[in-house]
Amino acid sequence: MAKRFFGRSFSWAWLACIPLALVIVATWNTAAHAQEDAITPENVQFVLDNIWVLIAAILVIFMNAGFGMLETGFCRQKNAVNILSKNLIVFALATLSFWAIGFGLMFNEATPVLGLGNFFLSGLSADEPYAGNLTAPVFFLFQAAFAGTAATIVSGAVAERIKFVDFIIFSILLTAISYPITGHWVWSGNGWLGALPTGGFSDFAGSTVVHSVGGWAALCGAAILGPRIGKYQDGQINAIPGHNMSIATLGCLILWIGWFGFNPGSELAADAAVPYIAVTTNLSAAAGGVAATFTAWMMSGKPDLSMIINGILAGLVGITAGCAGVGFFGAVIIGLISGVLVVFSVGFFDSIKIDDPVGAVSVHLVCGMWGTLAVGLFDTSAGLFYGGGIGQLISQVIGIVAIGLFTVVFSSIVWTILKSAFGLRVSAEEELKGLDIGEHGMEAYSGFLKDTSDMGGVA
Amino acid sequence: MAKRFFGRSFSWAWLACIPLALVIVATWNTAAHAQEDAITPENVQFVLDNIWVLIAAILVIFMNAGFGMLETGFCRQKNAVNILSKNLIVFALATLSFWAIGFGLMFNEATPVLGLGNFFLSGLSADEPYAGNLTAPVFFLFQAAFAGTAATIVSGAVAERIKFVDFIIFSILLTAISYPITGHWVWSGNGWLGALPTGGFSDFAGSTVVHSVGGWAALCGAAILGPRIGKYQDGQINAIPGHNMSIATLGCLILWIGWFGFNPGSELAADAAVPYIAVTTNLSAAAGGVAATFTAWMMSGKPDLSMIINGILAGLVGITAGCAGVGFFGAVIIGLISGVLVVFSVGFFDSIKIDDPVGAVSVHLVCGMWGTLAVGLFDTSAGLFYGGGIGQLISQVIGIVAIGLFTVVFSSIVWTILKSAFGLRVSAEEELKGLDIGEHGMEAYSGFLKDTSDMGGVA
Amino acid sequence: MAKRFFGRSFSWAWLACIPLALVIVATWNTAAHAQEDAITPENVQFVLDNIWVLIAAILVIFMNAGFGMLETGFCRQKNAVNILSKNLIVFALATLSFWAIGFGLMFNEATPVLGLGNFFLSGLSADEPYAGNLTAPVFFLFQAAFAGTAATIVSGAVAERIKFVDFIIFSILLTAISYPITGHWVWSGNGWLGALPTGGFSDFAGSTVVHSVGGWAALCGAAILGPRIGKYQDGQINAIPGHNMSIATLGCLILWIGWFGFNPGSELAADAAVPYIAVTTNLSAAAGGVAATFTAWMMSGKPDLSMIINGILAGLVGITAGCAGVGFFGAVIIGLISGVLVVFSVGFFDSIKIDDPVGAVSVHLVCGMWGTLAVGLFDTSAGLFYGGGIGQLISQVIGIVAIGLFTVVFSSIVWTILKSAFGLRVSAEEELKGLDIGEHGMEAYSGFLKDTSDMGGVA
Repeated sequence: MAKRFFGRSFSWAWLACIPLALVIVATWNTAAHAQEDAITPENVQFVLDNIWVLIAAILVIFMNAGFGMLETGFCRQKNAVNILSKNLIVFALATLSFWAIGFGLMFNEATPVLGLGNFFLSGLSADEPYAGNLTAPVFFLFQAAFAGTAATIVSGAVAERIKFVDFIIFSILLTAISYPITGHWVWSGNGWLGALPTGGFSDFAGSTVVHSVGGWAALCGAAILGPRIGKYQDGQINAIPGHNMSIATLGCLILWIGWFGFNPGSELAADAAVPYIAVTTNLSAAAGGVAATFTAWMMSGKPDLSMIINGILAGLVGITAGCAGVGFFGAVIIGLISGVLVVFSVGFFDSIKIDDPVGAVSVHLVCGMWGTLAVGLFDTSAGLFYGGGIGQLISQVIGIVAIGLFTVVFSSIVWTILKSAFGLRVSAEEELKGLDIGEHGMEAYSGFLKDTSDMGGVA
Repeated sequence: MAKRFFGRSFSWAWLACIPLALVIVATWNTAAHAQEDAITPENVQFVLDNIWVLIAAILVIFMNAGFGMLETGFCRQKNAVNILSKNLIVFALATLSFWAIGFGLMFNEATPVLGLGNFFLSGLSADEPYAGNLTAPVFFLFQAAFAGTAATIVSGAVAERIKFVDFIIFSILLTAISYPITGHWVWSGNGWLGALPTGGFSDFAGSTVVHSVGGWAALCGAAILGPRIGKYQDGQINAIPGHNMSIATLGCLILWIGWFGFNPGSELAADAAVPYIAVTTNLSAAAGGVAATFTAWMMSGKPDLSMIINGILAGLVGITAGCAGVGFFGAVIIGLISGVLVVFSVGFFDSIKIDDPVGAVSVHLVCGMWGTLAVGLFDTSAGLFYGGGIGQLISQVIGIVAIGLFTVVFSSIVWTILKSAFGLRVSAEEELKGLDIGEHGMEAYSGFLKDTSDMGGVA
Repeated sequence: MAKRFFGRSFSWAWLACIPLALVIVATWNTAAHAQEDAITPENVQFVLDNIWVLIAAILVIFMNAGFGMLETGFCRQKNAVNILSKNLIVFALATLSFWAIGFGLMFNEATPVLGLGNFFLSGLSADEPYAGNLTAPVFFLFQAAFAGTAATIVSGAVAERIKFVDFIIFSILLTAISYPITGHWVWSGNGWLGALPTGGFSDFAGSTVVHSVGGWAALCGAAILGPRIGKYQDGQINAIPGHNMSIATLGCLILWIGWFGFNPGSELAADAAVPYIAVTTNLSAAAGGVAATFTAWMMSGKPDLSMIINGILAGLVGITAGCAGVGFFGAVIIGLISGVLVVFSVGFFDSIKIDDPVGAVSVHLVCGMWGTLAVGLFDTSAGLFYGGGIGQLISQVIGIVAIGLFTVVFSSIVWTILKSAFGLRVSAEEELKGLDIGEHGMEAYSGFLKDTSDMGGVA
């Protein structure tokens, strides 16, 4: 618990260029001492910016618990260990792959298409401003949490039938390569989508950059895997109820508060806009939850808890692109439409026999695209409904299409290679018996008696 | 992820008065630019105040997960989906109704009895100081989270027998009208309870304004609904054990940390008093937990987990009014008495056949009143035991009675109207079978085998 | 919700020395008013330091939920209420005993071996800087949360067979006496381990001070208690699977984010090093999780969820001592080795028939010692691999041995006294039936049908 020093070395690679390092360290020390010794308003603001975004990053990392509980609860108990394992290891993998490769591809500014340096965070100071006032460590942690989110979204859509090893490899490649490249186009200093002639593509906190990327990858995975046994049988769509609505609801509430890191943290600074963004985010979540509840209630005659949950998440995904630029009424309208959309979207994907056990594609892809378009309509300075013309809306469409195309092509290639290398899908016997025994050799709820009627007589 | 602008419009209503708006916006821009451009200590403190209260608001919003898990775990599995649905949608409803109506009734200063403006946050700046240093968005979010808490308290007491639609309508009316009006009396700039001749009614973070209001509404609901089938049968009080003590305990721990937003956040600023309040809060929670544990242990011969949980919550509710004004020993005494009170209170309400499945009335109403009175005894500047005379204690009694009366009258009227409009209670058959199937058409724990002996042979 | 005042009395003892107090208060008031009235950069930094460490304390307190869910999930459902009760009450007990005695023993600087004052926080100002810029309340809350962590670690290792009363008394003594004394040696201003001639013993956030202390106490308890019935039977090591992997995984993720308070908060200030510490912490956690996953996968043929969980925790414990002083590659190596160590350690303790149901000794003691040693190897300014010589490593060994010896002697004495006073272990019949019924008279999952084959025919 002592005061820390500056110029700590970031990697052993550094040791190889000691002379250069010494010069740099010497310079840094001077600057840093000057900065640290005097307590100026600028320095306090610098620290406040970094501490706030660190707290936001912690909230986003907490979303791993939210996704884990949500996706596990929405699936069957015989696959719970498998889903928990995927959702737990995925943030560990994302952290390492984004540190090694992803961050450099995404934020190094070598080219407008992808970055070509700063791998392993090499060449970046530990405590000097790097992105605005943010130091490289805090900016990295926040962005790594975002990368992990994109991968976690995939987990739900491919649940209950994918082999563990395939998911692991896909997650590494998504967070190391695909997500960073498309992210570079929007959020790096010189990405090509940020410089469109119709106005820069605008995605404040990632409706497209994070959520629709995860959604596209999930859709490709679910499509290539095919539906779970029994889902579309005898010409019917059979509901396969989740095993634990308590943890699913807990997951939704954790995600809700995690989003207060996701969206307001994307301001990447501590200022008066941060709480404003929290309010638009909250209004849209509330509106999405209410809209989905009543839509489902009217359609099925009963308020469906899974639709309340997905409605709230839909509202959160929908407002993510525009949370900083829309007004309160705009936020409520975006949320309401998200909540209605998600109910119909779940029905739509079932009708075309894309089996997405948790509704990840409907929440993250469909509402992610809607939210990105909504910026072109409701942004108070550039939106069509606020006198901003059609330019922003065109940019939004270009961004959605470009990022979608890249992600679909990348994902399809990877899923296809994995399919031929290992096979994507567990055996029918293992699927019936549950992936927990087959893939992990354990069960999630030892000591409880279960209904084994869906285990095909093999349990 | 770009810097935000000022004077963004709050609602379409604004667009109708563009000329006026332009003048205001022009003025704001000047002031705001001046404020933003220069990094002064005052500006950094302004940002710090707003960021801290935002974080506190997030912690309070997280309490929805705490209440959700606690109340669901304390009830039976056949009603879990229903309770989860109520506790999830209630914050969405509270957000929208408090935004539309409640905030204006509570904080607009038109009259000492209720506010008459600022509905939909109209007329308030997005990033200028509004309450002390807080901007309107962050102040709104914090207060909306409080309003949601009052409504959530009701959910537990009416659980396992109320119709979903009634709870929804009651929650909207409580957060839009009743809670804001009584809250106005205490926490607005000109409420009449804040100006009593015996000294202003003092309720720092809401033992009365939030918890006893929720508790009174819960008590009225539980009384009008009547007890669950089988609770008081054959002249006996039959324990109806909860179905999931793991999530109930998790809920308690989430509420514990949520209270570190609730109480310290009520300072409404970032200063050195904030951690002091966290310590009094924590000491009282600990004392409440220990006192309830040993009281229950002595009375029943065994340490009862549900009493450990309720004792901690009792200590938290008890310290809420006085957390900023009492000393550490005062906090411990308040907590100890809260912990003893809650054990006897649970027994008392059972003895008069008020069936409150989770003990919400004992925790929030009884300990809320005790905590409010305790300010008049233990406050280091105004309390009777610290030489402050009897005046503060008299003010506390007046506030408790006035707010209690209003809430009881309002709640009774609403519950009675709802009873004649829709019926409050599900059918006996549905109650036996569980509200999950009857109200929502799904079950919480699909795939597990359950004991159906309490389902009246209808499952 | 009003501005707070200074010089509020901390305890009734104060009242006995009013004349002295008046002088002190008068002086404070002057200084404090000067400080409060002017908003200077120094004052804003002061508030920021305190608010940040408060938030870190809240995250550490949240770890109680993490440990509670983890340990409960890893055990059998018939003992869930017992474990939940222990993990819930332990933080209440730790708060009160650390307030009354522990804090004074640990941080009062009377002697190099233990403190002799400031009990009940007496004699400390409520809002003046006490430790660096931190006020006594926030420093106390942060440290009380740490003390609670040490006690919570014990709970898991002694689970499923210890009497509730023994655990309670042990926890009080550990947090009031043993933990504070060894902690004083390292973290007080004048502890003897901080002044070793080979260089001060370095344990930034408590790999040894917190985790190995909890681990040693846990090891002694598990050894004296003996294994659970059936664990080592017929010459075999029988797996006793946990009952709820969902909450165990949730617990791991809560602990992960709690560690972002534990380690970065140990900077005890808000500065640019804080997010750096968060990144080393996260990298080590990720590396630990990945290493344990693949080690277990290679050894058993399947990726074991409990090893993913324990690997992440191992990485977190391992980096705790060195989080502020190692580089990113150092952090990853520390985490990788932690993840491998924990897998083999779990096997080792089973081979010597120490029954630790949740792996607490392997995670907290083994990786705590490893992480403390690692400072002597990887610290960029003092570590052997970075040209710092052997001195730091020697200091680390001395600290590990001294603290370990003290804790083992203390724990063994207390466990032995408790054994002769109350008996440590529940009866065999109660153990088979489950401690929930025997110790608490209730069950955790009422309404679900359970497999009673391990209940010895008594249920």
